[in-house]
Amino acid sequence: MAIRPTSMIKRQSVMEAAEQAFLSEGYDAVSMDDIAANAGVAKQTLYAYFGSKQALFLELVTSMTTEAGNRVHADSPVIGLASEVEAALNDLLRRQLNLVLTPRLMQLRRLVVAEVRRFPELGRALAEHGPHRAIAALAVVLTELDARGLLAVPDPTIAASQLNWLVMGQPLNDAMLLGDQGAPSPEEQAVHVRHAVATFLDAFGVREGFR
Amino acid sequence: MAIRPTSMIKRQSVMEAAEQAFLSEGYDAVSMDDIAANAGVAKQTLYAYFGSKQALFLELVTSMTTEAGNRVHADSPVIGLASEVEAALNDLLRRQLNLVLTPRLMQLRRLVVAEVRRFPELGRALAEHGPHRAIAALAVVLTELDARGLLAVPDPTIAASQLNWLVMGQPLNDAMLLGDQGAPSPEEQAVHVRHAVATFLDAFGVREGFR
Repeated sequence: MAIRPTSMIKRQSVMEAAEQAFLSEGYDAVSMDDIAANAGVAKQTLYAYFGSKQALFLELVTSMTTEAGNRVHADSPVIGLASEVEAALNDLLRRQLNLVLTPRLMQLRRLVVAEVRRFPELGRALAEHGPHRAIAALAVVLTELDARGLLAVPDPTIAASQLNWLVMGQPLNDAMLLGDQGAPSPEEQAVHVRHAVATFLDAFGVREGFR
Repeated sequence: MAIRPTSMIKRQSVMEAAEQAFLSEGYDAVSMDDIAANAGVAKQTLYAYFGSKQALFLELVTSMTTEAGNRVHADSPVIGLASEVEAALNDLLRRQLNLVLTPRLMQLRRLVVAEVRRFPELGRALAEHGPHRAIAALAVVLTELDARGLLAVPDPTIAASQLNWLVMGQPLNDAMLLGDQGAPSPEEQAVHVRHAVATFLDAFGVREGFR
């Protein structure tokens, strides 16, 4: 079944208007009227597409998080040689950290956390399409590196979570609590990732004799 | 200068009323009138002690976070022998994780995150008295273990942050996004901490020949 181009354009306009309004005003302060006006669609059209303000916000959380994940995890890194493991993990995790710290994604996460008690689907959507997906993608990479004897990873899911949080824990927590000015610069992010990956490889690298 | 017992009792009543009100209703929904009534003090007394609702909430964040940290980090663990390092780190970090996942502290953190843009002092207070203090305390422990040759930790501040986030990252993030029912049980916490500490020791343990 073909999707009509007009519908796609309207949907895109609504999502852009919703993102702009929710991220700058907060969930409660925004009405469906505001979004319809900013998107240039009739309010009836907005309700016909999304059903409710809650459903629209849930759709925004899902689409922003999924799209961000696609930019990092759509392709697995190509690692040919043992000597390339460290650089490949550094590159993958640096890109992941940099993306997650984007101010619009951090503000989305703050809004979601604020609504978790009242609207738990939001937090579940963000967790599923954000960190849980990232960890699953890392586990695929680690499983392959283990199978090829380039790393020794007996439980790739546990190790993937550990690698993820070695990298993401401090910068994400600081940015959540200290605001975007609490997030490290790209140069600081690169140094931070190098330290995290080095520790991970000290634990899961294949050892050849004494070190 | 002696603190008058009556003042201390009043202060304690106010803090208890403030905690109860803010954590169940949210910051905006609570008024100084509500807190004064619940604490059994005059509104003038409340303002005389705390100045404003913002200042009272900041005081609540600081006192709840500091008191929680005191329960874990007031005493450094006593580690006599190399064979005790793993058990001591497991015990320390299990207690830290269990405390941070307390529902009242998680709800406080969600409220603070929700207010970070409008009221950045809150996030700074939580970061300073929460994770930054925990990492500083871990760094003291790791510095001593390194000095005694029980671990090889060239940069204790980096290693302490890595140990902290290996342990705290996934459970804290899940509890923030999935609500208190997303937090692991005490048994799951203990298993999680054991895996995290084992990885940390694989990276920073003193190696004696082949493994």
